[in-house]
Amino acid sequence: MNTADKLLLFLKTHTEQWISGEVISQRLQISRTAVSKHVQNLKQKGYTIESATKKGYYFKQVSHLLLPEEIRYRLATENLGQKEISYFTETDSTNTQATLLAMRGAAEGTLVIAESQTKGKGRKGRSWLSPSVQGIYCSLILRAPFSPNQAPLITLLAAVAITETLLEVTGLPVQIKWPNDILLNGKKIAGILTEMSTEVDRIDYIIVGLGLNVATSSAAIPAEFRSKATSLLLSTGKIFSRVLLVQKYLQWFEHYYYDACQQGFEKIRTRWKELSAITGMYIKVEAFNHVYAGYVIDIDTDGSLLLRNGSGDTEKVLSGDIIHAVRRNTGKNIQ
Amino acid sequence: MNTADKLLLFLKTHTEQWISGEVISQRLQISRTAVSKHVQNLKQKGYTIESATKKGYYFKQVSHLLLPEEIRYRLATENLGQKEISYFTETDSTNTQATLLAMRGAAEGTLVIAESQTKGKGRKGRSWLSPSVQGIYCSLILRAPFSPNQAPLITLLAAVAITETLLEVTGLPVQIKWPNDILLNGKKIAGILTEMSTEVDRIDYIIVGLGLNVATSSAAIPAEFRSKATSLLLSTGKIFSRVLLVQKYLQWFEHYYYDACQQGFEKIRTRWKELSAITGMYIKVEAFNHVYAGYVIDIDTDGSLLLRNGSGDTEKVLSGDIIHAVRRNTGKNIQ
Repeated sequence: MNTADKLLLFLKTHTEQWISGEVISQRLQISRTAVSKHVQNLKQKGYTIESATKKGYYFKQVSHLLLPEEIRYRLATENLGQKEISYFTETDSTNTQATLLAMRGAAEGTLVIAESQTKGKGRKGRSWLSPSVQGIYCSLILRAPFSPNQAPLITLLAAVAITETLLEVTGLPVQIKWPNDILLNGKKIAGILTEMSTEVDRIDYIIVGLGLNVATSSAAIPAEFRSKATSLLLSTGKIFSRVLLVQKYLQWFEHYYYDACQQGFEKIRTRWKELSAITGMYIKVEAFNHVYAGYVIDIDTDGSLLLRNGSGDTEKVLSGDIIHAVRRNTGKNIQ
Repeated sequence: MNTADKLLLFLKTHTEQWISGEVISQRLQISRTAVSKHVQNLKQKGYTIESATKKGYYFKQVSHLLLPEEIRYRLATENLGQKEISYFTETDSTNTQATLLAMRGAAEGTLVIAESQTKGKGRKGRSWLSPSVQGIYCSLILRAPFSPNQAPLITLLAAVAITETLLEVTGLPVQIKWPNDILLNGKKIAGILTEMSTEVDRIDYIIVGLGLNVATSSAAIPAEFRSKATSLLLSTGKIFSRVLLVQKYLQWFEHYYYDACQQGFEKIRTRWKELSAITGMYIKVEAFNHVYAGYVIDIDTDGSLLLRNGSGDTEKVLSGDIIHAVRRNTGKNIQ
């Protein structure tokens, strides 16, 4: 642990009190000038620390930023997020940056995280709105022991992981909208973008991107999307800790990922069906100019959606866009 | 066409004669100093041009390098190689550089080519020997309208394209060794590495890498590989034009690629079977720690190899390494 981290830890374990520069200087064996310099650095990183002559320093609040040291602080994972965390105040797209790192050999569990994205990516070349410090925009690098055709299962895994996270941290009734969105009261609150580099039968790396609207303001959402998108702040009026959300997401992701590596995807498929907004519904899916229509009956072992169509046949849909969804009894719509 | 290209074209169309700087200067409407400067540049790029006071210039030979202007000169393709050609004297891997270009949005048909590679890649993280100016190391960027599970077909396509090229240019009895090697008299002369970036159901880009041993010397091949690898020079004692080989490869590739986009892969599968070294043979394939054994009966519509095993059942092999191959009647081996 370097001096800056030691000072931060010392301050965090001595909150709600004034501590003199003298005491800090003695305990950390550094000069009072060095203490003052490190405190300035912490303030610049967004930590709230008051200073007063004679009194010393008063640690009020951790940074509001998604700093790697905050994400790693008490992070209860074995691997994900424990090694490299690549942090950007602004970047084009965390998936793009993660791809570049993976090409240079970055290890599984490497995390790329940004306060804002200028070219945040969604599925099929769509964009993901990424206003600064209002959301979580992050990408995980995996070197998965799966075959390329199991990729849809990774999206299911990520969807389950972020949904579990939101249920645990916020208690809100979030649901998964197949294939890669998370809804809160029918509005999009998070999305997943799984991309991978493969040879014919071998995955080189998988990038799992997550965009989560945490404190996204109404003003940051273009008017035409306001009926379709929301954030935790907009829906609850509350500010949730982005650091805590990232930590819980990494924990849930790792939990399900290790399970899948060892036991396969059964547990994820089962949990996915419980968390899915469309289980049992009648839906229409647009995929490659073909529209599938039918009742959602299951998720196949490869992660495809299984529909029962009007003729009673089972149709398999790998990916697509739900353009219509009706609950069997109530006729209530989701989009 | 810029002045440098105009001068080159003028010289190429006035070979086997001395041309005075005066004449060139008049025809191209540039100063004699400019003529002299451009000729120096061409010499530095490997063109053989004699110069003598009073006589002028004598164009003897085009460059021995794989210069983009030479590849494009009379290149009979519509798209492949016609736009961006990214040329390196040395690079890590043309597949890696093509991936970086594709991430930045490079168009279909972009070609990356290098005189040497420091980290030439083979399948499964293996390396590809890439001594300077002795081979062709190039990668094509495709934005294919195929689904990710059709990827094996792209490797078949590339294998057919380079085999057709070698048959046309050299007349040598080259054959395809499934899945991605080209053999000459049982020794490896070329290899293909197909990599791609995908979302679940959508290919973002495909990179098709080719390594071809043209003038590779015995000294450049490590002793332990000399029984398994060869080059056109080693097998025939002849020097073949690398530029011509690249041009023909682009033409054959485009021919089959456009056909596949419009008509599907039937023609490629048919031709592949004619050119395959293992059609009808009894082989053993190692894939993911499982060994498949059987007679090669066909290539499936998705590009998988179909084997008939000892029990008479058909087994489907997506990719792997042939560890044993015997011709049904003669018992003659290939490796």
